Amino acid sequence: MPVLVVGSVALDSVETPFGKADNVIGGSATFFAASASHLSPVQLVGVVGSDYPVDQLEPLRARGVDLAGLEHAEGRSFRWRGRYRHDLNAAETLETHLGVFSNFEPKIPEQFRSAPFVFLGNIDPRLQLQVLDQVRKPKLVACDTMNFWIESRRPDLIELLKRVDLITLNDGEARQLTEEYNLLKAARWIMNRGPKLVVIKKGEHGAFMFTERTIFFAPAYPLESVFDPTGAGDSFAGGFMGYIARADDLGEQTLRRAVIYGSAMGSFAVERFSVGRLLEIGQRDIADRVREFHRLVSFEQEL
Amino acid sequence: MPVLVVGSVALDSVETPFGKADNVIGGSATFFAASASHLSPVQLVGVVGSDYPVDQLEPLRARGVDLAGLEHAEGRSFRWRGRYRHDLNAAETLETHLGVFSNFEPKIPEQFRSAPFVFLGNIDPRLQLQVLDQVRKPKLVACDTMNFWIESRRPDLIELLKRVDLITLNDGEARQLTEEYNLLKAARWIMNRGPKLVVIKKGEHGAFMFTERTIFFAPAYPLESVFDPTGAGDSFAGGFMGYIARADDLGEQTLRRAVIYGSAMGSFAVERFSVGRLLEIGQRDIADRVREFHRLVSFEQEL
Repeated sequence: MPVLVVGSVALDSVETPFGKADNVIGGSATFFAASASHLSPVQLVGVVGSDYPVDQLEPLRARGVDLAGLEHAEGRSFRWRGRYRHDLNAAETLETHLGVFSNFEPKIPEQFRSAPFVFLGNIDPRLQLQVLDQVRKPKLVACDTMNFWIESRRPDLIELLKRVDLITLNDGEARQLTEEYNLLKAARWIMNRGPKLVVIKKGEHGAFMFTERTIFFAPAYPLESVFDPTGAGDSFAGGFMGYIARADDLGEQTLRRAVIYGSAMGSFAVERFSVGRLLEIGQRDIADRVREFHRLVSFEQEL
Repeated sequence: MPVLVVGSVALDSVETPFGKADNVIGGSATFFAASASHLSPVQLVGVVGSDYPVDQLEPLRARGVDLAGLEHAEGRSFRWRGRYRHDLNAAETLETHLGVFSNFEPKIPEQFRSAPFVFLGNIDPRLQLQVLDQVRKPKLVACDTMNFWIESRRPDLIELLKRVDLITLNDGEARQLTEEYNLLKAARWIMNRGPKLVVIKKGEHGAFMFTERTIFFAPAYPLESVFDPTGAGDSFAGGFMGYIARADDLGEQTLRRAVIYGSAMGSFAVERFSVGRLLEIGQRDIADRVREFHRLVSFEQEL
């Protein structure tokens, strides 16, 4: 089952305590696709400028990412430059150039409109709503967002919540959106406004999935060295949605495993700059890491 | 099997966003004993001044805490006054009066010296070493420590590490002690200096247990309202050691369950001021919460 993703396709320049990378491929749709394509076919909608090194997206196409929805516009591509300090928790944005992204209006190709699983990457909620106007009865629609939209597009975001089944956001964003410090209360606030599923990501501290009646928690994989956290959240979303699409099921056990696949893909993403590690791994690596997650948290209950 | 605990028996005055409490019973040995005594007999060694409301320790005695090692000294009891802000993560110490605690020299009663399980609460490492000189071949010795001792008593602490089987400390303390930011590297640094087991507590973000070959992670229980975090770490240690003493076993599965029992007891401790909630709960509450921990993290692997 294919997953449709709409989001940014960018060029990132990143500095971490371990090195720097200039103008490497990035963006929410790129990380999502590199991750999800290990698990299911991906249909990508986004925009790049005339300066984009599209040949670098070739490995994505080769593994089943359909780029028919990638618009090629006149002008410069979306560029982000950021830096991480020693604790790697928060990116410091040094520069953002929207370029062609500032006039982006997502056009979903006819052959993508029946995608059963849809992920609305972190873009203007107005554009996320436009995407929903173009698709036909998906089985699951998930969205991401960020502090900038929570601040500047709150009414649109609240409108969007009514129309999505799941939202992924980080703990800071959840608190900002809901004005609840406690994450259980924040999740309930959100569920009262539409989504039946809320995934709150806490970076190196793992992720919660809230359903109407259950809470599931997955730790982040304890890596000896995190190289570059850029894209971890989108890679998580890719693993999560990719696994659900592969299973074509929305039962509790599938959703729980999806969180684990998301966490696994997020843990790979941070091991190299850009999508380097995501393009390198295979099914074996993913299965191994999922097993390690199981070993990390499992304990036998007494009889 | 009894657990011997040596630590502080204090009077706490605490302010949280939800209320305040003045001169309530607290201290590492008190929280530890209130927690561990649900699971095993406890032998407590500590000191109080002539102003201590010893009758308030009666509920502890009633549930199997042997207070024969509680010294009654002339002078004022150890008092701590602290405050928590909205995020409840870090206590702000407003006042500390050591009182009789400043001349404390732990004397282990003869009938406690063969305790098979020993917990050295967060006191001067020199005193922790004195305790070890008085006990006979325990099966497991665990210790706690804090930033103050890491800074002021490093050589003694390093000496102590050679003589304990397990250390519990929080993530900040682990980083301070080892000068490693990464917790895996920090745990290995510690294990290279003695302890075969390292438990790193991350407060609301859960706890890691590192053994020579495995890593186990337990989340903190997601509570809708955390009332007062004081004593959570000592209650964790009490649940952990109490469970091990009850099981009288040091196998991997027992250790994992011990971390869960520790997390469960920590989650109860923060629901009220002082040991209020710990004295209120029963076996049923504990078993229920352990089951909820299992539900929180469990997922089925695919075949």
